[in-house]
Amino acid sequence: MSGQLDFDPIAEARRQWDEHWGPDAGPSMVAVTSVMRAYQVLLGRLNDLLAPWDLTFPQYEALLLLFYSRRGSLPLGKMGARLQVHRASVTNVVDRLAEKGLVERLAHEQDRRSVLAQITPAGRRVARAATKRLNAERFATKPLGDTACEQLFELMRPLRASAGDFRES
Amino acid sequence: MSGQLDFDPIAEARRQWDEHWGPDAGPSMVAVTSVMRAYQVLLGRLNDLLAPWDLTFPQYEALLLLFYSRRGSLPLGKMGARLQVHRASVTNVVDRLAEKGLVERLAHEQDRRSVLAQITPAGRRVARAATKRLNAERFATKPLGDTACEQLFELMRPLRASAGDFRES
Repeated sequence: MSGQLDFDPIAEARRQWDEHWGPDAGPSMVAVTSVMRAYQVLLGRLNDLLAPWDLTFPQYEALLLLFYSRRGSLPLGKMGARLQVHRASVTNVVDRLAEKGLVERLAHEQDRRSVLAQITPAGRRVARAATKRLNAERFATKPLGDTACEQLFELMRPLRASAGDFRES
Repeated sequence: MSGQLDFDPIAEARRQWDEHWGPDAGPSMVAVTSVMRAYQVLLGRLNDLLAPWDLTFPQYEALLLLFYSRRGSLPLGKMGARLQVHRASVTNVVDRLAEKGLVERLAHEQDRRSVLAQITPAGRRVARAATKRLNAERFATKPLGDTACEQLFELMRPLRASAGDFRES
């Protein structure tokens, strides 16, 4: 980052958009640019909060998924569906967690070609401690309050459904 | 991605959160997880829309910044401040744009240590054509409408301000 601006760069981009292209695309442009920047801000803060456990946020998400699974283990393919990431990313994240001793890779009992990730006792301890910190820090969302957070979830839900993440019930 | 779920995975995570940790952190957890996923969905769609010009969305953002600058050129440091990215990222993006002939790197007239990026005539043509497509596709935000987009911008603004991006006026 190279210094604070005395104007909101997204509001300034919108001014130029309206001037050059008319007002039609303005709302979508500022929404997309805001999501891009909010992602960067949140990911940076979350990674900082998780640094004491040498975890990144995607690694934390995968660890929690196992923590809350009924048997403490899941096939990698199922983890990809739940985390909404590609299989290669799941494999990478599980490898990193295994290096830290937080999960173990196991062969599936019924299907030898399928690989399971199983959370270890150390993984459960880290999952609890890291979650306590993230909860206490409200997942790095300050200064947003509960109402703003709920609205963000509701507003982005149709976008996630349209991407095929889940069927609208 | 490994198949569609018949439930919203973020709503399911929230159910588990409330059950195990109480309701305090739920809103922030679902907001963060929604931003992370919306970012992935939007970036994938935007990169697809920009594929005809062999551009990624961060490259497009840098090109547009030059397109709208008064002289068609900016010092790389200033580009980093406006795009809210680190200097190394700006250098990388400008290098990719230069390889495609869309920008040129110039030495600053007054300060030889400073490097300027200057948009080329080909860069201006690509900026116009790519923007027309993104505007027509509402920056890949479908099915969100104008009101939802405006609300997303407004809701995330305090987060961007708190990250030091700009001073609240």
